[in-house]
Amino acid sequence: MPKRKICVVVTARPSYSRIKTALTAIQNRSDLELQLVIAGSALLDRYGNAVDFIEKDGFPIAAKVFMVLEGENPTTMAKTTGLGVMELTNVFFNLKPDAVITIADRFETIATSIAAAYQNIPLVHIQGGEVTGSIDEKVRHSNTKLADLHLVASEDARERVIKLGEDPEMVINTGCPSIDLAKYINENPKLDFDPIQKYGGVGEELIWKDGYIVVMQHPVTTEYKESKKHVLETLKAIRELDYPTFWFWPNVDAGSDGTSNAIRTFRELEKPQNIHFFKNMDPLDFLKLLKNSKALVGNSSAGLRECAYLGVPVVNIGNRQYRRGRAENVIDVGYNEQQILEATKKAISREHFAASEIYGDGNSGEKIAEILATVELKYSKTITY
Amino acid sequence: MPKRKICVVVTARPSYSRIKTALTAIQNRSDLELQLVIAGSALLDRYGNAVDFIEKDGFPIAAKVFMVLEGENPTTMAKTTGLGVMELTNVFFNLKPDAVITIADRFETIATSIAAAYQNIPLVHIQGGEVTGSIDEKVRHSNTKLADLHLVASEDARERVIKLGEDPEMVINTGCPSIDLAKYINENPKLDFDPIQKYGGVGEELIWKDGYIVVMQHPVTTEYKESKKHVLETLKAIRELDYPTFWFWPNVDAGSDGTSNAIRTFRELEKPQNIHFFKNMDPLDFLKLLKNSKALVGNSSAGLRECAYLGVPVVNIGNRQYRRGRAENVIDVGYNEQQILEATKKAISREHFAASEIYGDGNSGEKIAEILATVELKYSKTITY
Amino acid sequence: MPKRKICVVVTARPSYSRIKTALTAIQNRSDLELQLVIAGSALLDRYGNAVDFIEKDGFPIAAKVFMVLEGENPTTMAKTTGLGVMELTNVFFNLKPDAVITIADRFETIATSIAAAYQNIPLVHIQGGEVTGSIDEKVRHSNTKLADLHLVASEDARERVIKLGEDPEMVINTGCPSIDLAKYINENPKLDFDPIQKYGGVGEELIWKDGYIVVMQHPVTTEYKESKKHVLETLKAIRELDYPTFWFWPNVDAGSDGTSNAIRTFRELEKPQNIHFFKNMDPLDFLKLLKNSKALVGNSSAGLRECAYLGVPVVNIGNRQYRRGRAENVIDVGYNEQQILEATKKAISREHFAASEIYGDGNSGEKIAEILATVELKYSKTITY
Amino acid sequence: MPKRKICVVVTARPSYSRIKTALTAIQNRSDLELQLVIAGSALLDRYGNAVDFIEKDGFPIAAKVFMVLEGENPTTMAKTTGLGVMELTNVFFNLKPDAVITIADRFETIATSIAAAYQNIPLVHIQGGEVTGSIDEKVRHSNTKLADLHLVASEDARERVIKLGEDPEMVINTGCPSIDLAKYINENPKLDFDPIQKYGGVGEELIWKDGYIVVMQHPVTTEYKESKKHVLETLKAIRELDYPTFWFWPNVDAGSDGTSNAIRTFRELEKPQNIHFFKNMDPLDFLKLLKNSKALVGNSSAGLRECAYLGVPVVNIGNRQYRRGRAENVIDVGYNEQQILEATKKAISREHFAASEIYGDGNSGEKIAEILATVELKYSKTITY
Repeated sequence: MPKRKICVVVTARPSYSRIKTALTAIQNRSDLELQLVIAGSALLDRYGNAVDFIEKDGFPIAAKVFMVLEGENPTTMAKTTGLGVMELTNVFFNLKPDAVITIADRFETIATSIAAAYQNIPLVHIQGGEVTGSIDEKVRHSNTKLADLHLVASEDARERVIKLGEDPEMVINTGCPSIDLAKYINENPKLDFDPIQKYGGVGEELIWKDGYIVVMQHPVTTEYKESKKHVLETLKAIRELDYPTFWFWPNVDAGSDGTSNAIRTFRELEKPQNIHFFKNMDPLDFLKLLKNSKALVGNSSAGLRECAYLGVPVVNIGNRQYRRGRAENVIDVGYNEQQILEATKKAISREHFAASEIYGDGNSGEKIAEILATVELKYSKTITY
Repeated sequence: MPKRKICVVVTARPSYSRIKTALTAIQNRSDLELQLVIAGSALLDRYGNAVDFIEKDGFPIAAKVFMVLEGENPTTMAKTTGLGVMELTNVFFNLKPDAVITIADRFETIATSIAAAYQNIPLVHIQGGEVTGSIDEKVRHSNTKLADLHLVASEDARERVIKLGEDPEMVINTGCPSIDLAKYINENPKLDFDPIQKYGGVGEELIWKDGYIVVMQHPVTTEYKESKKHVLETLKAIRELDYPTFWFWPNVDAGSDGTSNAIRTFRELEKPQNIHFFKNMDPLDFLKLLKNSKALVGNSSAGLRECAYLGVPVVNIGNRQYRRGRAENVIDVGYNEQQILEATKKAISREHFAASEIYGDGNSGEKIAEILATVELKYSKTITY
Repeated sequence: MPKRKICVVVTARPSYSRIKTALTAIQNRSDLELQLVIAGSALLDRYGNAVDFIEKDGFPIAAKVFMVLEGENPTTMAKTTGLGVMELTNVFFNLKPDAVITIADRFETIATSIAAAYQNIPLVHIQGGEVTGSIDEKVRHSNTKLADLHLVASEDARERVIKLGEDPEMVINTGCPSIDLAKYINENPKLDFDPIQKYGGVGEELIWKDGYIVVMQHPVTTEYKESKKHVLETLKAIRELDYPTFWFWPNVDAGSDGTSNAIRTFRELEKPQNIHFFKNMDPLDFLKLLKNSKALVGNSSAGLRECAYLGVPVVNIGNRQYRRGRAENVIDVGYNEQQILEATKKAISREHFAASEIYGDGNSGEKIAEILATVELKYSKTITY
Repeated sequence: MPKRKICVVVTARPSYSRIKTALTAIQNRSDLELQLVIAGSALLDRYGNAVDFIEKDGFPIAAKVFMVLEGENPTTMAKTTGLGVMELTNVFFNLKPDAVITIADRFETIATSIAAAYQNIPLVHIQGGEVTGSIDEKVRHSNTKLADLHLVASEDARERVIKLGEDPEMVINTGCPSIDLAKYINENPKLDFDPIQKYGGVGEELIWKDGYIVVMQHPVTTEYKESKKHVLETLKAIRELDYPTFWFWPNVDAGSDGTSNAIRTFRELEKPQNIHFFKNMDPLDFLKLLKNSKALVGNSSAGLRECAYLGVPVVNIGNRQYRRGRAENVIDVGYNEQQILEATKKAISREHFAASEIYGDGNSGEKIAEILATVELKYSKTITY
């Protein structure tokens, strides 16, 4: 029997940790063949060059696709997506996969969905059914309506996808593969590397071994003109806090230029003594860093997802994760220096929490691969009501 | 107060009749400004050059966008869509509309949706919420999930869009503007032109004044390799019927080359004496032709929509209109010569039906313009459940 | 030693016969590896589906690229080229060839040139240095200025490329591979197939065995609005001539819709009894057909090139081949029914000519492969003066 | 008489100063209408946001086109160009200019040339006929072969364009509009602003009023992998020199990420006390800064062009300006710390030179506008030999 060819498209650094254990599980099965496509900001140095980690992890890459337009505004986001449709169409046409996987809800993921769906290739959507703010909200549910099989990360998500008119048999809660990594970290929590020594970055040499926090704040596309102002509140709060901080640069998104600029200017002018900046980190190292931190501050989905399982306190800022399911480790605050400062102090003072399984029990990669190997693959559907 | 700029994108011949009376109503209001973009196959001679009718009707055109890739297969459909995203993004960026209208469910309509939604321009979707087969089914509901305001054509559609998680206040049943045209035709039913004299076309000179039928059969994208075989059944049935027939060439869609080829070959080899072929017709003339026909045969949505109001008997073939709401005028058959022949005979023998209002009462254009002028325009939303 | 990877991009039917024997010669060498990319109209049924002949000839295809925009006007020609640049860039990036070959002067060939030159891949231009009218003239010399190695088809061309400031060592007269095919035909001239039986086509069953002519007329892009009028002169002349005629549909070019339309309409209305139409033919079969014909009429470069070696009389119409080197077999005429008619009568009455070697001696394929295997490959140059 | 519509495409910061006085002259004529298109890196903050200066100078902008792919490598340069062809084609199609102007030789300028030439719009090439290294060399001469009218900047360039087979009547030496600005600066040399106060930038507060130099070093596309190493030699030399220095970030080009990265890392690690960095400057301010400097160091064409007229000593590094015509103010050196250091010391110690007119006498803008208003515009040509 010929192997099923499963084409996975990774377009950004965070998507990689949301699929990594599934990639391994696909590779390990004799009835599946992995066709890995690396595209978009995952190829770009400015966004942490995820491709380097992927290659280091030993995954063979079937095709690379440069598709990100410069400008980081809504116009270039749309054009990047259009370009992605064209390029990925060509890639799928030549790779001839039996199924294509599109991951979550970043704006460019709909390019994968269109390129597959229009070519009558069964489309699998990972991590649909969640709720947030931003353009991601529109993109996620559109991906659902283009996809044939839905592998969701929580019960809540499963119910929502079914409500969206999808056949319940094609909606399966596998949990999120990022939780598989978190489980591994919970079992191996030791921070066995020096982040500054291993990853360089810019900013102060910190005395961090007695306690540190992590910050990661992305722009919100539907508020992209405020991205500068928003991140400034966080910058001021963190400087005021004066606690050792590892800060990660934002993803490519409309407004990230605003965010990046604000950070850059703040650094030049204010020379904050308690912050060190990183562009990227191996996903496992990043989770270890989180696990050993006092708290994560910002609006990364890792705060709601991986940190739920890791038990790390989280200060979640603004609308980006609006209504996404969260465990007890999360404190929500607005774009407000004082609120951020207070909440972060509170988070630092807390103990870590027990692992929550709302996003999976740590075995998602295997479950996903098993389903991909055995489910009946279709590329046509009609709404259930 | 500045006028609201309403940008309408027409990408194909049939979309024009589904929006025409709304265009007029927009133009007639002092609080709205029409920005009309003509794109895709609406610019192409091979697909009936809809742009000529639009210009003849006196609508000013803000931009024209060539975007159709040759090949008429799933791969070029996807690329056309990607190209459309890129081009339309540029067009909207330079026109700066207050709202963009995307029409119905053709594959390339999602390009309009992405170009608007990603640029934070309020997106209005016309004729969402219906159910059919084919890739259109996926595209239609994805358009819904990208759109902020839904102007649907039936109660059934309204309920479905709300079930899809849209805010009920943003889902309004306006009916379909194509019914406005049908209403005009019901009031002015006289066939006041000679179709062959006015539109040329190819094939036999028919004696049609004592009765004729109309055929319009498009390929179904998810079955595009069978398009040749499918249309052949219809061709054989119609030749066998030996009744005067006006046949319209198909739209640009994956498989239309198969459909077109089959028709062309059949003509060359079989020289059917009872069929005359047209590439296109002014929308009003087309409706008059339908109104005065004995029946419409094929799989055009006009059969379920305009013909419901016109009361013309319809033989609907295959899966293209699967589950779309229909009035009593429709007989459904498979891709089967014998079934088509029998059903068509039956349809010809029937009286016309009374007008059904399931797709509107003939005043949709005005309603749409009124809503566009007065509704609060947003570009952000979250699912209702 | 690793094989040199030679990537050849074929974008249209006529380009294939201009490179075919070189493809074979590349494949036969142990020090070269062929990477064949089929793109543009070579993939399209409407333009004779060259890809079918290429696959039948047994060449493995490394990638296929749909890139032709519909519309056949100057605007879509330009967009097709832009799309070609983007797609071919991706293809070369993933194939990593040691050299790329771009063929002759069709508008889309500059896409191959840019995709290679900008990525620092040595670019080989086949058949530069000739002179014609139309946009081809601009494209050909631009290709020369982007290319690093020039394999030209005549002494005249060699001198012109050197005058253009290219290093004489990188300009080599290999002759044209199409002449290799012509040589084979001169040695095996028998018409061993029935064209209508083998290729179908449309139009009358002709009694052609006692003598026939071949017509092939393409639109001229810089005169594209006149294409309809121009081909009509030829159509009228050929009908008036009333001699058995095999007529080939035009290439995809701005205006070919005009040309095709004119032919289609003429057929419908005038039903010319002496013309049979073909969309395509295997290159060798086409040359056999030419060899056994009384004359070739139109503006195909085959008239000046292959027919020089075959010795077939040619009536060359209009500006498309303006100033391209020609042997004594060519009669030049304007777009004028009477001139075409007279010249064709004269051509038919003539004996065939002796083979002229102005475009090569029939061994070009081998020469090209030898050079590709041994020349020093560079991707940087400066003008010689 | 209708005005001639002249469409000028500015795709990068340096191109603006090479055309600015011509834009003014076009605007001032009653027989010309300016259609200004701003595209590519001229729209991007990272590359100095030239569009802001253009808008501040009061030029109305007909269209803006985002087209730069992220990655700054040869692959994204090629894709950017392909995208540019597609987008600019659309822009010209809708603007319907009587002539299009493409400027000089940056990689993306060929997009303008193709979009115009293929659409039968007369193409004017500014500053052809020069000689340099890098991909610019190929692009410049390809632009020449696509263009119909050549407005060159030196006698040497005029002769070279004619040798390239262009009709001498269509090759006119107008000089370079950047020299018009230099002339104005020679007449108004006073440095009437504080660069750091007005433009911010990053790095040390310098004591510069007693003497400073300017550095501007771009990557060379054909050597893009060495860009890091190359700029490092300059960085080390300038730090060693320990003389007040204003350093400008590089243009978008393959390798500029390497160049930018090297500069950024050097700043972080070495904290050079004598360097202040700028992203951009109004063209006139930039020339004033040059005029009052002791020397310009790097590989900018401004060193050979504007500085010839300004009389400022120049240390020209490496191959980027290889063989471009130069006056006596230029010292050429290799990528070598010691050579750069020695040459810069020598340059600083020199008096300024008398103005050289090899690139024009300061009246180019007017000459260009006059020609555009009066020349016969064609879009077809054949080589002269």
